Amino acid sequence: MTQHINGVDIATLQETLGEMQKDPELGQCQFRAHNEWTEHSRTVSRIRTFYAEKQEMEHLTTHEVPTDEPTIIGGTDTAANPVETLLAALAGCVTTSMLAHAAVQGIEIESVESEVEGDLDLNGFAGLTDAPKGLQRIRLKLTVSSDADPEQLRQMAAMSPTLNTIVDGAQVDLQVETGARAGTSASEYTEQTPSMH
Amino acid sequence: MTQHINGVDIATLQETLGEMQKDPELGQCQFRAHNEWTEHSRTVSRIRTFYAEKQEMEHLTTHEVPTDEPTIIGGTDTAANPVETLLAALAGCVTTSMLAHAAVQGIEIESVESEVEGDLDLNGFAGLTDAPKGLQRIRLKLTVSSDADPEQLRQMAAMSPTLNTIVDGAQVDLQVETGARAGTSASEYTEQTPSMH
Repeated sequence: MTQHINGVDIATLQETLGEMQKDPELGQCQFRAHNEWTEHSRTVSRIRTFYAEKQEMEHLTTHEVPTDEPTIIGGTDTAANPVETLLAALAGCVTTSMLAHAAVQGIEIESVESEVEGDLDLNGFAGLTDAPKGLQRIRLKLTVSSDADPEQLRQMAAMSPTLNTIVDGAQVDLQVETGARAGTSASEYTEQTPSMH
Repeated sequence: MTQHINGVDIATLQETLGEMQKDPELGQCQFRAHNEWTEHSRTVSRIRTFYAEKQEMEHLTTHEVPTDEPTIIGGTDTAANPVETLLAALAGCVTTSMLAHAAVQGIEIESVESEVEGDLDLNGFAGLTDAPKGLQRIRLKLTVSSDADPEQLRQMAAMSPTLNTIVDGAQVDLQVETGARAGTSASEYTEQTPSMH
């Protein structure tokens, strides 16, 4: 019988961790998405393959993540906007990170809910002022049903890959290729975190 | 009749930009998500309200963004994982940012597709080594059907709020409250970008 702690298949997780400890190369992953502009301000990302445990893997099905924009900025509001999707990724990641680390340590969690919010100044995006173009500050509050120490849970949540990506920043190689669906001209540039300049 | 360039309702967008130029306060937005752990490694974020143009606003419907984990790390793989969701948010954002800026400048774009990938070392997340816990490097390639200069399009895509959040990093105030669904104990700490220490 499969044993679950905090919904996590603990035997599978511990086996993966045990093997990774013996061979750190097993921990090297690559995650991917293919995105397509469909209509108006709507895009759909399709996620099918990833690389983990030294091999190409496939999800059980192709997962779709759509984005759109609210009507006030000219969108059709058929999906969360990209910034809201980023916040959803962050909230999901800190939650499952906390659940997994707690499971490994045998700490039981009954329920988790969270509220996340981020402030954005559209003047920066629009290029009207020198305001930063990204989110400056994000507030994320987790409400957890557990007997565990909240500071211990907070440290587990803080292991989240998405949280660490947002807090530390990541280098993004942004490339644009134009043409009639085939590349005839290209531009490439690496956007870097300030600390990496 | 509503005029669209690149699928964008250009009159609405230009009206919003014009008003923001007169009153920059109108550009202050807050985006939010409510996330709940549902079962196994699955979470669902619900996105309903946001703040923009000096007022509380509601989406046309409540948007849902689920996350899960692949089976190899003990999940049920019912949705993209949080890191893949972050990449989807990024690809959607650079695409719509480019479309909007191009629309304002009268540059027509026929189609946009993109591939995005990010490298993650799970040893960092698992705490097995000192490897960084977040994505270190993301590659994003846009293929655009347009007569425009690819470098000009790249600069428009680079205005993306999600891109700038990931490249520059954001401060995240992470708070955990425990109890029987009501808070009895709390822990709060601010995760900061290295440059802000």
